[in-house]
Amino acid sequence: MSSSFGQILKVTTFGESHGKGIGVVVDGYPAGISLKADDIQAQLDRRRPGQSSLTTDRGEADRVTILSGVEHGRTLGIPIALFVANKDQRPGDYQSLREVPRPSHADYTYQVKYGTRSSSGGGRASARETIARVAAGAVAEKMIRHIAGMDIVAWVSSVGPLDVPAFDWTQVSRADVDRHPVRCPHAETADAMAGMILEAKDQGNSLGGIITCVCRNIPAGLGEPVFDKMEALLAHAMLSIPATKGFEIGSGFGGTRMRGSEHNDPFIRKGDRLGTETNNSGGVQGGITNGEPVVFRVAFKPVATIGLEQHTVGFDGKATVLKAKGRHDPCVLPRAVPIVEGMTALVLGDMLLLQKMRETAQDAIR
Amino acid sequence: MSSSFGQILKVTTFGESHGKGIGVVVDGYPAGISLKADDIQAQLDRRRPGQSSLTTDRGEADRVTILSGVEHGRTLGIPIALFVANKDQRPGDYQSLREVPRPSHADYTYQVKYGTRSSSGGGRASARETIARVAAGAVAEKMIRHIAGMDIVAWVSSVGPLDVPAFDWTQVSRADVDRHPVRCPHAETADAMAGMILEAKDQGNSLGGIITCVCRNIPAGLGEPVFDKMEALLAHAMLSIPATKGFEIGSGFGGTRMRGSEHNDPFIRKGDRLGTETNNSGGVQGGITNGEPVVFRVAFKPVATIGLEQHTVGFDGKATVLKAKGRHDPCVLPRAVPIVEGMTALVLGDMLLLQKMRETAQDAIR
Amino acid sequence: MSSSFGQILKVTTFGESHGKGIGVVVDGYPAGISLKADDIQAQLDRRRPGQSSLTTDRGEADRVTILSGVEHGRTLGIPIALFVANKDQRPGDYQSLREVPRPSHADYTYQVKYGTRSSSGGGRASARETIARVAAGAVAEKMIRHIAGMDIVAWVSSVGPLDVPAFDWTQVSRADVDRHPVRCPHAETADAMAGMILEAKDQGNSLGGIITCVCRNIPAGLGEPVFDKMEALLAHAMLSIPATKGFEIGSGFGGTRMRGSEHNDPFIRKGDRLGTETNNSGGVQGGITNGEPVVFRVAFKPVATIGLEQHTVGFDGKATVLKAKGRHDPCVLPRAVPIVEGMTALVLGDMLLLQKMRETAQDAIR
Amino acid sequence: MSSSFGQILKVTTFGESHGKGIGVVVDGYPAGISLKADDIQAQLDRRRPGQSSLTTDRGEADRVTILSGVEHGRTLGIPIALFVANKDQRPGDYQSLREVPRPSHADYTYQVKYGTRSSSGGGRASARETIARVAAGAVAEKMIRHIAGMDIVAWVSSVGPLDVPAFDWTQVSRADVDRHPVRCPHAETADAMAGMILEAKDQGNSLGGIITCVCRNIPAGLGEPVFDKMEALLAHAMLSIPATKGFEIGSGFGGTRMRGSEHNDPFIRKGDRLGTETNNSGGVQGGITNGEPVVFRVAFKPVATIGLEQHTVGFDGKATVLKAKGRHDPCVLPRAVPIVEGMTALVLGDMLLLQKMRETAQDAIR
Repeated sequence: MSSSFGQILKVTTFGESHGKGIGVVVDGYPAGISLKADDIQAQLDRRRPGQSSLTTDRGEADRVTILSGVEHGRTLGIPIALFVANKDQRPGDYQSLREVPRPSHADYTYQVKYGTRSSSGGGRASARETIARVAAGAVAEKMIRHIAGMDIVAWVSSVGPLDVPAFDWTQVSRADVDRHPVRCPHAETADAMAGMILEAKDQGNSLGGIITCVCRNIPAGLGEPVFDKMEALLAHAMLSIPATKGFEIGSGFGGTRMRGSEHNDPFIRKGDRLGTETNNSGGVQGGITNGEPVVFRVAFKPVATIGLEQHTVGFDGKATVLKAKGRHDPCVLPRAVPIVEGMTALVLGDMLLLQKMRETAQDAIR
Repeated sequence: MSSSFGQILKVTTFGESHGKGIGVVVDGYPAGISLKADDIQAQLDRRRPGQSSLTTDRGEADRVTILSGVEHGRTLGIPIALFVANKDQRPGDYQSLREVPRPSHADYTYQVKYGTRSSSGGGRASARETIARVAAGAVAEKMIRHIAGMDIVAWVSSVGPLDVPAFDWTQVSRADVDRHPVRCPHAETADAMAGMILEAKDQGNSLGGIITCVCRNIPAGLGEPVFDKMEALLAHAMLSIPATKGFEIGSGFGGTRMRGSEHNDPFIRKGDRLGTETNNSGGVQGGITNGEPVVFRVAFKPVATIGLEQHTVGFDGKATVLKAKGRHDPCVLPRAVPIVEGMTALVLGDMLLLQKMRETAQDAIR
Repeated sequence: MSSSFGQILKVTTFGESHGKGIGVVVDGYPAGISLKADDIQAQLDRRRPGQSSLTTDRGEADRVTILSGVEHGRTLGIPIALFVANKDQRPGDYQSLREVPRPSHADYTYQVKYGTRSSSGGGRASARETIARVAAGAVAEKMIRHIAGMDIVAWVSSVGPLDVPAFDWTQVSRADVDRHPVRCPHAETADAMAGMILEAKDQGNSLGGIITCVCRNIPAGLGEPVFDKMEALLAHAMLSIPATKGFEIGSGFGGTRMRGSEHNDPFIRKGDRLGTETNNSGGVQGGITNGEPVVFRVAFKPVATIGLEQHTVGFDGKATVLKAKGRHDPCVLPRAVPIVEGMTALVLGDMLLLQKMRETAQDAIR
Repeated sequence: MSSSFGQILKVTTFGESHGKGIGVVVDGYPAGISLKADDIQAQLDRRRPGQSSLTTDRGEADRVTILSGVEHGRTLGIPIALFVANKDQRPGDYQSLREVPRPSHADYTYQVKYGTRSSSGGGRASARETIARVAAGAVAEKMIRHIAGMDIVAWVSSVGPLDVPAFDWTQVSRADVDRHPVRCPHAETADAMAGMILEAKDQGNSLGGIITCVCRNIPAGLGEPVFDKMEALLAHAMLSIPATKGFEIGSGFGGTRMRGSEHNDPFIRKGDRLGTETNNSGGVQGGITNGEPVVFRVAFKPVATIGLEQHTVGFDGKATVLKAKGRHDPCVLPRAVPIVEGMTALVLGDMLLLQKMRETAQDAIR
């Protein structure tokens, strides 16, 4: 059970859906940064259930408390602990899980791995676990914005078979993304996506989709080859989010169909630095950022918990029919946007600190 | 510069293309396992340049030496160090790199990150670095085969726009894969791929593609949520391989277009354990293996170094035309197969040891 | 700021004396172990201030709450988070610290390191931080007792110049140790120590001393050479406790005066295993436990905060006289006993899990 | 088997006395530092056997080769691998070990831990393993000298019952230390020590002793509380060296007998910073360096391998008499001086990089 992430900027999360709450400890964070609960709450509100008709009906306020590490509104350089209490539990909802593992959920694998499992099924395999990621990510984001002016914006680029058409995202902001509750900045597509999600909700079915994330003002030089290349850490971070099935950066899977002569990004002069004409690389070369925007996409499978009847077998191997009774999201994509942003901020923050350290050491030598 | 990978089974690599050689230290490996240089050489031979007309003409024997950790043909439980000497350097090949960074290569980012770079360009951003991955992977593979009978087979499933048609891979072996130098087990497609690669070679151009990897006999219970989920570690491992741009497990990006009712894998009885009817999950649920084959795909971009002229700018920002003179692979896919297998073995080995530890502790309690 | 300790059994602590409380996350702990708040509270009560006339008068209940990881009284294999709220703050006590760093305290070094510090002085350099160590240690102790029957007992063996005479500690228990509030199991010496501590308290002065710790039923084979030798990890753990200045195992510094022929521990048969006749090694050979009791001693300096006037300088470099007004322990030794035990349990627990993993892997091969 | 040490400046060692050689990989080292084999060789020569009549007669040149990470005499920022080949093996020397574990050596514990052991006994529990520490330490030392002007000098302060009298070490240099082969800078004591060592050698016996280490020009602010306090890491590093039994910093065990009013180090003005009048703290307060010299002492037990007959039992539990036939040091202290210095440099280098990183981040905020 690895509940820590990051090398220098290290987060450790805890909590399950049926315990007292969800928390996270952020260690290695510099002193002197202004930090208030509201800075964190803003992203938690974008993640919380019940924020629109597109999500689960469960309403949870998910208010964050800063337990340590901050005094007079500034960080002290010591661990910052954040906590969000659990509410609104309906134990009955999960009764049937005792005997029948939900298909494509973690009930079965947790039972095999730990020889036991929590009454809510897969313990930490709960959407609530992502609260800690969003909270820690918001803290990391303050730092990378302060120190380097970095900017991260993610949005829903596909829901089921509906794709956003190509558009110029160079200026897209979170405000643009939040204009529609589906969190797709292309209004027309957003409406169609919302319709499809509501239809799935009515049918007791669910949908998957793709989130695109763009990181701007990323200084060149971030990423630690050979094993902690920027794209490797981002892939690790993204595939650790529940329900994800794929990651691609820059040209991604589509780029495999191009020839080198088309795919290569020629260098051009951009002010006092080198930039590239195209960005098939997605902002990384040799695992290190090159100063161009870091662009990647994350695939989310359709939510495993559905209201429709499923023919499956119980832990005892006997055939049965399962029908979820709880209140669940028909499509996690809109709420997953701040999770993708949060995990991205953790990776960028960690890599920024490591590179700052290297640059300082190297400057001291010359 | 993070040159270590793994938590319990920890590998640390070193070496660059223009130093004395490439090496790796494998720490945390159990004692008592039979290990000979030949066990490792077999996979290195599948990776080495010059093995067929489809690869670079540079011929390097890449013979491995075991420097430590093995006595009388058995491991001692102490670090195993492996070394492969460098040969066949042609310093002149890289002369032009001093002034002009190669597009989509790591020359520029290494220079920015370290304030210097090796004469071969991006230092560790060399294909030779992957020798260490293959060697360490072969060592890991011996262990996971011994202890748990695990079996890993990867193959080239796409080259440029050419895809292998759907086929039953349940019995596919490395021998099947190696029947054709392109390392695609579907003969007809393999021939077409080879033709396309030779054509790109003639043109001084390059091709990308996709490698599919299947892991069989994987015990249920492997993977350490929430941050070290099996798919997260595999994604990390794969995206740390040079030239990769994407990773997907199970249904992957395609699965985002399905509904939950289609995508869910219902449980069925398989002997004395539960299995699933379909495997859209790709062998993992909640980040933990479920006993089904682990199946994933890795996207490789077309090789950045091409013989065609490229219009770009030098480090000084002045426009220039670059034309690579060295001998380079037109398509790395055939040689990347053992690299994908090796990195997979490292992840599976690490996760196996961690879960063995947990099971033993949990058994001791009951 | 490294707030994590341990490789497999990993604890992460947070909290400072003037925040909301002190907490710890225990990750990597096996599932299925019975765990109640009372198991932890017992050791916290031995650490809490105000427990006897020998300690500070500050009374703090220090009740622990289990925030996560346990359901129906058993661990789930997921992170266990523990929290102890802060109380009884008297902000005025620390007012003078703003301008004058306390001699031999952490006010100055925290200010230099972080460019800021908490209003209580050295932020995490507070005795309250050790609550997290005791709580986590109690959790670890449950495991090592369950799995291997390990037993850890520490006691105060010196206070200032007063030393416990040599005695047979083979059967000494925590009950024996707790018979006297000074936590020295030798009654006569304990009385003298208490007298000396009360005298120092009256004088506004403070005392140091030594804690001896004995670990029994430690299986042979624990410790991970070459860098994580058992004694290296214990030394790390002990010297991370506030106010410690030294560590010695087995014969320690005294053993440097012996000849090899006297110092060596000859092997003898003990039942079905080998044991040693003497134990100058302190239970470890080559960094690995040999089945004999692990015995070590930890030096604690006299408490830095004293009521007597001290001539020193302020942050501005100007001479001043400092006189502490708060309520402080004249001697931390009695309360430090459970801290030493707790940190020992964390090391032993981590090493036990690692060795169980190795044995299982090695058994699987044969 | 943990063969890695350090968080940012990470070393990984390999090799055993009967394999091909001993090596180390230094990762995380900044680019641009001038580094030649000679820089490393100087310290290896102070460690090598056969350097004087006080050490073992085995002569080994122990020449180091740089395998990677350096080009044109400067580091590249990528892993630096160093290798020293083994020579002069006399397999017969160790024949008897197969059946009888040497008292206070690692033969028995390695056998229990790994279920096997190398033909030289405890595999990695060989004095040769320390070659890697000295080599890596010499590399680290170059960096901390370049960047911060740090200076580390260790010497033999006791051999058996002979102690160096108190002296002013503020200006003591390695040249002073090396003036006498016993590596004690106090000439008269050094002669007496040498006499005692030669006497022990003649008798086939061995001696222990104490090494004192002083680190000067250490910037305030190094050390990462709460678990990676400077003294905790130094203790970890020192107790990981073979044959060590104790560590104390500043006043150490002796300081436990003082009162707070005597022990506290009052602040005084030292130029533009604060210093302390006395240095009972040994240069650390709250786990963080305070700008005063870091001073600590390390206890080494008498060498376990002696020529005298020892009554012990074999692996089979049967009584036997053991008499070592190989050539061994009667006292490791003179050769251990560069090992202590090397491990110290690794700790200081790691902590320096971490603090540089923090300062840069904190400066960027203000």
